[in-house]
Order: sequence, then structure tokens, then C-alpha cells
Amino acid sequence: MTSEGSEGHFIVFEGGEGAGKSLLATRLARRLEAAGLHTIEVREPGGTPAGEQARELLGQSLTPWAEAFAFLLARSELVSRVIKPALEGGATVLCDRFRASTVAYQGYGRGLDLKRLAEANASATQGLTPDLTIYLDLPPEVGLQRKQGERGGPATGREGLAFHERVREGYRQQLAQAPEGTWLEIDATQAPEAVEAAAWEAIAQLLGIATGE
Amino acid sequence: MTSEGSEGHFIVFEGGEGAGKSLLATRLARRLEAAGLHTIEVREPGGTPAGEQARELLGQSLTPWAEAFAFLLARSELVSRVIKPALEGGATVLCDRFRASTVAYQGYGRGLDLKRLAEANASATQGLTPDLTIYLDLPPEVGLQRKQGERGGPATGREGLAFHERVREGYRQQLAQAPEGTWLEIDATQAPEAVEAAAWEAIAQLLGIATGE
Repeated sequence: MTSEGSEGHFIVFEGGEGAGKSLLATRLARRLEAAGLHTIEVREPGGTPAGEQARELLGQSLTPWAEAFAFLLARSELVSRVIKPALEGGATVLCDRFRASTVAYQGYGRGLDLKRLAEANASATQGLTPDLTIYLDLPPEVGLQRKQGERGGPATGREGLAFHERVREGYRQQLAQAPEGTWLEIDATQAPEAVEAAAWEAIAQLLGIATGE
Repeated sequence: MTSEGSEGHFIVFEGGEGAGKSLLATRLARRLEAAGLHTIEVREPGGTPAGEQARELLGQSLTPWAEAFAFLLARSELVSRVIKPALEGGATVLCDRFRASTVAYQGYGRGLDLKRLAEANASATQGLTPDLTIYLDLPPEVGLQRKQGERGGPATGREGLAFHERVREGYRQQLAQAPEGTWLEIDATQAPEAVEAAAWEAIAQLLGIATGE
């Protein structure tokens, strides 16, 4: 499902605050490496000099479209400089957040026009589509409680419960509209081991790895 | 021609490298202040903390859409935090570059999709349209010669002649399509005094200032 000519696999992790995406991506990257697959782990926004600058820029309160453009800027650089070359080289790329985050957070969360965001996303990604999006679903009150005590982070992490409810709804809508087999929803209230097992099963199937489980 | 509810006037300066926009804007701002008008002078990208960070970010070579998003980010912040409040307060706002620059440089210059850029521009500006766009037309070879010896500046300033020819074509196309009376083209090969006189006449007419000239 990735762009023509790419030989690797592109796997994206999505979900609200505290869902455990980052840790899951790191653990799965280790398992893939252990299975002998060249694996690249990236996060948004970041992964390039300009992307890291965009991440810093997002530490302040921005107007909604400025926030969206900062994420899109970071995405454009990451796709062109890291993800596409890695996929062309045959790597498996694990990405912590991608275009669905923009739809969920800036679209459903902030209320920006969904059609315009979709167009901007298409520009930023050059049409690159994940082979698999692993969506960790979690009630926002649970996620926010998990994150309690953490400082900093993007402005979206400082929003209230209603915002994060809209974000969750944004993910659910995208899940409902995704083509068969492209999104996997995992209940992230489960123990991390159970979440990882479900994600690994889907990834192993996608990549043709014998799981032995 | 500005958005509903705004009482001031929004005047934009556009043109290629070395056309003399910045100096012209500064001189006209002084004349407007001398005429008793509250005047705000801004430049793109910049004018807000995030906009200045975007300007720094543009000092490096970016992929074309990342470059566009950086300008759009800065524009979103400038419109929301500076230009709209100033116009609502009745000020005359002089802005060195605005949405037409994105069309000329990233659209015609870099070849990005014009329709997508127009949509992104509409998002960034919240539909805010200049009352008057003063376009300084100059053959690129003249402008680049004027800029010779200057260091730094945005990546677009390091492009070759063909790029700047496309940018000029982008401005000419926008000029041709602009509604009657919204764009003024000035031949910037003229002496700065002649350029200023032509610009002042149009501004004085817009603002109802007796020129006495």
C-alpha cells in the first residue's frame, strides 16, 4: 500500500495521550531487528533537523493552523529525507504518529476543516500511505491520568478532557473509514504485554514472519 | 476589501529579490505616521516569536512543501496575532510579502500545486485580503545584481536566474488575475524616488490623504 517503487513496509502507531505508542514502537522495533529485519524507528514531529526545530516551536501556544503547519512541515521533511529513502532501501519503518494524528488532533480536536487538512496531508506525505496503522484506543481519562506528573510536551497534551474526547472520536472515524486490513485497533487498557502481542501478530502477518506463538 | 469588521487598511508589498520592497515600506510607513495615521510595519516570515523561529528554520535547505508550510505557519501567526488586531484597531498595516509570495515562489518557482497552495493560503490568512498590493516589477538579473554581496537570507535567494524568472511570471499571472484596483504594478528599475511617488499616490488615494503633489 506504500507508494510505487518502495520495497519496505511502513507501520504507523496512533492513539491519544498515554496510550503507550512510543514504548510499543520501541519494543516492536527490537523484535523486528531480532528477526533479522532492518528497522527504522521515527517519531513525529522530529527525526530531521527541521522537524526537531518544529517540535521546539510547538512547545509554545500557536494558533490552530500554525500548529497544523508545524506538524505538516516536520512530516514533509521526515517523509522525503528519512521514510521514503528507508522504504526504498527495503527497511521496515515504524513511525510514532503520522497523518492520522493531524486529522484527529487539529481536525477533530481543534475544529480545522477536514478537507483542507486532507489536502495538506497529501502534500506533506507525497501520497505515502502506511501499510498498517496500529491504533491504541484508550479512554482519555485513563490516558491523561497515566501522563499526569509528566511536564512539557506539545500543547495538545495540556488540553482538557473534552478536547481529548474529540481526538478519540477523530481516530474512531478514521478507523471506521479505513480500507479493510489497513488499521488495527487495540484496546490499550490491557496490559502492555497483551497490547504488544496483538500488534506483533499483525506485523508478523504483514511481513510474513513465522511467529511461533 | 479586508475582512468584515476590520476598520484599518492592509497594504502589501510584493516583488522579487532586490526590488526594494523593504526600504519602500519603511519610507512609506514614515510618511503615513507623519500624516497622522497609526501605522504598523511587518515583514514575512517574522513579526511573532513563532514567525521568527520559522524564519530561522528557513535558513536551511528544506523540501519544497516544508518550505511552504514554514511560510504558512509564520503567516498564520502574523495574521492572528498582529495584522487582524491592528486592522480592528484602525491601523494601516504595511506588510513586506504576503500570500502572493507563496504563489510566486513556492508555486511558480518550486512548482508546487497552485490549487493546494491557494487553499493553504486561505487557511493561513483566514481569508484576509489586502486592500492594495504594490508589486515592484524588476528583471531578475537586475535584482540579483543588486543583492550581490549580501549574505544569508532565505534559500530562495540562493536560486538561479531561471527560478527567479518563474517567480516573476508568477507575480505577473497574479497581477493579470487580480480584481480591478487591488494591485498596483510599479517599474522598479526606476529611481527609488519615482517608485515611492507612484506608491504614495496609490496609498494616499486609498486612504483619502490629500497629497498636495
